[in-house]
Amino acid sequence: MSAVFAWPQRVYYQHTDAGGVVFHAHYLNFMENARTELLQSLGFDPGVLLREHQVFFVVHSATLAFRRPALLNDMLAVTAEVKRATRARLVFGQQVRRGDEVLVEAEITIACTDPQAHKPIPVPAAIFRRFEQQNTGAPAAEPAMQVAEKEPIR
Amino acid sequence: MSAVFAWPQRVYYQHTDAGGVVFHAHYLNFMENARTELLQSLGFDPGVLLREHQVFFVVHSATLAFRRPALLNDMLAVTAEVKRATRARLVFGQQVRRGDEVLVEAEITIACTDPQAHKPIPVPAAIFRRFEQQNTGAPAAEPAMQVAEKEPIR
Amino acid sequence: MSAVFAWPQRVYYQHTDAGGVVFHAHYLNFMENARTELLQSLGFDPGVLLREHQVFFVVHSATLAFRRPALLNDMLAVTAEVKRATRARLVFGQQVRRGDEVLVEAEITIACTDPQAHKPIPVPAAIFRRFEQQNTGAPAAEPAMQVAEKEPIR
Amino acid sequence: MSAVFAWPQRVYYQHTDAGGVVFHAHYLNFMENARTELLQSLGFDPGVLLREHQVFFVVHSATLAFRRPALLNDMLAVTAEVKRATRARLVFGQQVRRGDEVLVEAEITIACTDPQAHKPIPVPAAIFRRFEQQNTGAPAAEPAMQVAEKEPIR
Repeated sequence: MSAVFAWPQRVYYQHTDAGGVVFHAHYLNFMENARTELLQSLGFDPGVLLREHQVFFVVHSATLAFRRPALLNDMLAVTAEVKRATRARLVFGQQVRRGDEVLVEAEITIACTDPQAHKPIPVPAAIFRRFEQQNTGAPAAEPAMQVAEKEPIR
Repeated sequence: MSAVFAWPQRVYYQHTDAGGVVFHAHYLNFMENARTELLQSLGFDPGVLLREHQVFFVVHSATLAFRRPALLNDMLAVTAEVKRATRARLVFGQQVRRGDEVLVEAEITIACTDPQAHKPIPVPAAIFRRFEQQNTGAPAAEPAMQVAEKEPIR
Repeated sequence: MSAVFAWPQRVYYQHTDAGGVVFHAHYLNFMENARTELLQSLGFDPGVLLREHQVFFVVHSATLAFRRPALLNDMLAVTAEVKRATRARLVFGQQVRRGDEVLVEAEITIACTDPQAHKPIPVPAAIFRRFEQQNTGAPAAEPAMQVAEKEPIR
Repeated sequence: MSAVFAWPQRVYYQHTDAGGVVFHAHYLNFMENARTELLQSLGFDPGVLLREHQVFFVVHSATLAFRRPALLNDMLAVTAEVKRATRARLVFGQQVRRGDEVLVEAEITIACTDPQAHKPIPVPAAIFRRFEQQNTGAPAAEPAMQVAEKEPIR
């Protein structure tokens, strides 16, 4: 049973607001980062998909529960897992976690469009096939978190 | 029957993404703008509330449906209406509209916290009282939209 | 002598950071808003320019001085004036003001590109001609500020 | 001779605009990320500095040259090096690079303020001392770039 994919996210000034906490809209950005890195880790490059295949991902709908605030310089872990996959939609379950605490919980439904016509198109077959196995209804894996060793480049 | 409050919002480059449409997280910002201007129009100043009364508004939860894309330079109207008010929460119904089209529909639930302790506090009594009349279950007003005459300052 | 164009900007939570002030990068957004509304007020629609004429504006360079902080719910005025115009560049002088105080001062140089090729193209002739009269070196007009009456749409 | 500190940055949809490139204001965010991670790597935690020592970093001024566009899903390297340090200011030289290409070049001057009073305060002595050796005028190190191995957390 595999662990849930998670991507590290540091909280910088740019994410905080005058209440001293992360402004709620930034969590949608953090969750986009984790979804993109999950796709990237499976070999799907959103830049190539957009520029060479005219496949553009859009958020179709979202449900978000903001449970506890994240603070400046917190190191968060943002999970991304595909809960359901059809030819029309990918439904992601996502969490923003700080250690054992779940700060934000979300369900984010993604669709694909043609970026010229702004019309819906199917999820690319290779991506759909990679995730359709998620539809089995098997119990979700328990996230096996640990703070990633993000390293500077120098 | 009063019309629904709406606030104009132009789409600038900063709101768009490589698909040529407004990036989904920005709609949460647009909706914050409209909620703030509604409060402001009723005499409640979020800056004074934060700095002098230690009242900080946070988004508790949100449900969003992104129906159609907004494009560069579109002039949108963002509605804000309180659907339910309790001492603990304000539940806003909000839409992002372009003329007669509803582009985004959302329910955004707001709570108040003490910004030092990051602990829940009641909604200020004056704000609660202003909105509790909304709880009657009367049919929602039909938005009476027209593009605002936003004027440059000079 | 005409007054300088200015566009009103309220400070919302989304613009502030944990220091209780506007995060510096947002001033670049405020200044884009004012430049766009100036163009719009002269009849140039950035959306039409992008989608029908393949004219895309990019920031070529910028110099910024952040003098005083803006706070939550402040009503700012953001000026935009073209100081120099060539076929290759528009050089804007811009200020973010709160009443008589200048909070931020900037020089922002804009160029045009073809959004498919990401290659430089000339500034559209109609825009260049509208602004080339600015090259006379006449003393800059004094901003004649007053808080705009931004009205909700309802 | 030490290499210049650099921090990896992937370009996500949220950073791009309708021209298909990174919107200019986001580079200021990328540069904040690199400065923060440099401080963090030296043992200075901006969250502790803000909440326990009332030390808040602000950008005092900035000069930016945007040379070439970054595209969706590019993996960038953002450098941060202190070129001059005084008790009042830290002057950073920063670049945004894609492989051998310099996309953006900037000088960002940072000051410290008391976040309650919004008044200037000295740069903390430990940070000043760590960087004052940079004032020797020695030739800047050549960036020794390599794409960091950023790993998912699972």
